[in-house]
Formats: sequence, structure tokens, C-alpha cells
Amino acid sequence: MPNTNENEKPGRPARRHAAEALGPSPLFVLADPQMGENIGAVARVMLNFGVTGLRLVRPRDGWPNEKAGAMAAGAAPVLDNVTVHQTVNDAIADCQFVAATTARRREMMTPVVAPKEAAATLRAQVEAGRKCAMLFGGERNGLSSEDVARADVIVSVPINPAFASLNLAQAACVVAYEWAQSDNTIAELADPERTPAARETVEGLIDHLQGELDKLGYFFPEEKKSLMQRNLRVALTQAAFTRAEVHSLRGAIKALVEGRDRR
Amino acid sequence: MPNTNENEKPGRPARRHAAEALGPSPLFVLADPQMGENIGAVARVMLNFGVTGLRLVRPRDGWPNEKAGAMAAGAAPVLDNVTVHQTVNDAIADCQFVAATTARRREMMTPVVAPKEAAATLRAQVEAGRKCAMLFGGERNGLSSEDVARADVIVSVPINPAFASLNLAQAACVVAYEWAQSDNTIAELADPERTPAARETVEGLIDHLQGELDKLGYFFPEEKKSLMQRNLRVALTQAAFTRAEVHSLRGAIKALVEGRDRR
Repeated sequence: MPNTNENEKPGRPARRHAAEALGPSPLFVLADPQMGENIGAVARVMLNFGVTGLRLVRPRDGWPNEKAGAMAAGAAPVLDNVTVHQTVNDAIADCQFVAATTARRREMMTPVVAPKEAAATLRAQVEAGRKCAMLFGGERNGLSSEDVARADVIVSVPINPAFASLNLAQAACVVAYEWAQSDNTIAELADPERTPAARETVEGLIDHLQGELDKLGYFFPEEKKSLMQRNLRVALTQAAFTRAEVHSLRGAIKALVEGRDRR
Repeated sequence: MPNTNENEKPGRPARRHAAEALGPSPLFVLADPQMGENIGAVARVMLNFGVTGLRLVRPRDGWPNEKAGAMAAGAAPVLDNVTVHQTVNDAIADCQFVAATTARRREMMTPVVAPKEAAATLRAQVEAGRKCAMLFGGERNGLSSEDVARADVIVSVPINPAFASLNLAQAACVVAYEWAQSDNTIAELADPERTPAARETVEGLIDHLQGELDKLGYFFPEEKKSLMQRNLRVALTQAAFTRAEVHSLRGAIKALVEGRDRR
């Protein structure tokens, strides 16, 4: 990426350290972002409101992206540390709490909250030392139902129903603004003692169970397969299992399978 | 402006009426906006959050502006009704309550509030039937101190001090979002019986008094003139005089001048 940080011209103080004094914050994960300008605008508004970690899933125009640099207006602490991922699953693998922004109503059992509530929850999770992700869909299609099903909560921005398409950077603006506002709010974790497993651990459980069920022809008829799988994913995600619980459950699944095979 | 409302293609329902069901809202006034893209992004996020009236002061690239249309993504109810003005003073002439967004600290006696408080105040004013304006500065220099002095309140978005430059459309996003949120909050007018005079009426008073004082060499020394005038403007604006009070005060000024001239 070309150096677009105007503050690094000779004679101007560097703003590179704009992120250093900030505390931990949720990662922002953009799935299938299209326009570099929007990625840059997201990076800028993140740093405006004290959010520093940005991950991109399949950016359409590759990465780095010149247009993102131009629009970020010097938000180098964010842009310089962007990581690129092939799937949402990979981008949130190390996270323990995931919120997904979506405009459309989804027929899912995942709880839906407003940005303010989401921010308070993220704040409580981050302050408990947990790695959190805030997931945003791309300009064209938003998030897939599969990816929304990976979230602990769905964040819905209350909006004019007659004109409900919120620009990606504006959705990020509202969430980042509420994140900054939540600095002064107090939220409590449902249970501070329970540390949820990282997403890749939960994903291992889901894969394991779905794989075994698939072999048994459980997901039938074919046209219902993806819906049945998604419902299973939401249930196992919402459970917020600890790492130890996932371990036990996988042991149980294994036992069930092997016991059956020994019969 | 070309028709950029994608919803007016044959076979798609028109969204032209997205603004019709909305109640009254504050006007957004952009002073010296430069990029059409930002004007379009402001229009879009305004309509997302139920704000419909947009006024432009000296748009750099003229008006209409194709790039604004493209970025507005169908926010025709806002763009089609834009008015263009030569001065901020003209753009807010018919308004009774004005809020100004600014990042820099100003040495002024005008009260400074957060977006949430500003929205609650604007909501109360609008519900009392008063015409309100939300003033935003341009990309390059923000608002002039002269124009900030025209405001009843200054709105300051709490932001990362190490990276405090908020994009115009993002500033509009935060204010419009809080406006939509304020729908459920209850704020009371300081005094619902007192209807403040429109800005052009207050401006007449300020001009009258300053003109008379100027003739007397009151604004001395020259290098302090603009500061002295601005302080006077803030005082007379903050007073929130009614129309009748302005009339009385102008009568008083006239009497003082004529009495002196007769001596």
C-alpha cells in the first residue's frame, strides 16, 4: 500500500501512535467488502472511536488497496495491521464472542439487539479479557445466513423502514460510536466465571456432529439440509460452551458413534 | 441531476415516498461542502434515520452534482428538495433553533453538548413546532467561528483525541442516528411558552446594534473587532429572544441613537 498517511510528511508529527493509548477493543470483520473506499472509511471511523483491529474476508479488489488508503485519511494504525482471510469462519476462529450486523430480519433463534445493547455487551466481554468480533456483510448481499448463524448476537440498527439500506461505513460508524459511548456504561457478563471456547473450538464440535449425522443421512430431505444444519449451528453457538464442555461433548459424540459401530 | 434512484427502473416499486410517512425533522445544513460523494452520503444517511431537509451553502462543485446522486443510493426524497444558499446566515434565516457540529474546542460562551443531548433538545424543539437546523462544516476547514456563533448549542462528538478528524458523512451519521434514537426519549423545552424569533429576526437585531456601535468606533482596536462582534453575536443568540422582544430591543436601540443625535 502506498503511504497515504499525510502526517508522515517531513515536518509533521506522526500519528502512527494514535492507537497505542487505546485499550482493547472488538475486532471489526468485513465479509466480502467490495469498494476500497468503504474499507478505508470503515478504518477511519474505527480509529475515530477507538477501535483498532480490522480483518477482511475475500476483499473483492484484493489487499492492499490504494483507494482504501486514500479514504482512511491517515488511519494507518488500523490499515497497517489488517489481516485477510478466506472465510468468515477463519476470520473469527480465535474469537470468543461474535456479534453480526444485519438489516434483514432473519428467521433464527439468535437474539437480536440494538447497537447500544450490543456495545455494552461487547464492552463487558472485552473487559473480561475475551476476544470479540463485530461482523459486517459486504455492500452487495450483506452477510450470508450461514455466517449470521455463527454469531452470539445479531445487531440491528433501528432505521427508516422505507429506506433501510445503510452504507457499510455508516453501519460501522454507528457500532463504533456506541462502542465509544459504552465506555461509561456498566454492563455485567451473564456469568463471568464461564469462559466461552474460541470459535474454532466450537466449529470443531459442529463439524464433528454434522459430519456424523450426515453419514447417517440425518439431513433429509436434501432441500432442508442447509436449514437443518444452520439451526444446529445456532443452537451450538448460542450454548456458549466452555472449552472443557466442547471436549466432553466431542467425547460423547465419539462414544455414540463407536458404540454403534461395535454393535 | 441524472435519475440515480435505482428503484424507479421499470418493474421495481418506487421509493420516492420514503420520506412521506416521516414526521418533521431538523434541517441539515452543510456549509462549504466539497465532495459530491460526501453530500450524497449525507443525504443517504439522513433518510436512513428519518431526516429529510438538506440545505447547502456554497457547494464547491455547484449543484446538482452527479457524484452526490450516485452516492445517495436512491435517497431522492432528500436530494430532489435540496436548496442552495450563499451564506449560512441565509440558510438558517427561517430557523428558530440552530445546533452546530464542531470538532475543535472554541473559546465561546455557547453551551457544548453531546450528540445524544443535542438530539433530545432538537426533538423537543421540533415537537413544539419550531424550525430547527443542524449545521455541519465543510471537509477542509469545518465551520467558521462566525457561523458557530450563530448556534444555540454546539454539538461535540466524543472521539479518540489522537485521531479526531471525523468525516462529514460520519458526523451526519452520528447526529442522524441519535435523532432517530431520540424518538423514544423525553426532553422538555426550557420554556414551552417562549417561542424564539426566527434567525433572520435575531440577525436584524445584531446588525442594527453592531452597525450603530461601529459608527461610534466602539469596536476598537481593529484587531479585536471581529472577536468583539462575535461575542456580541453569541450573547444575543443565546438570549433566545422572542419576536416581540427583538422588536422592543430594536426600538430601544433606535431611541438611544436618535436621542443622542438630538443632543
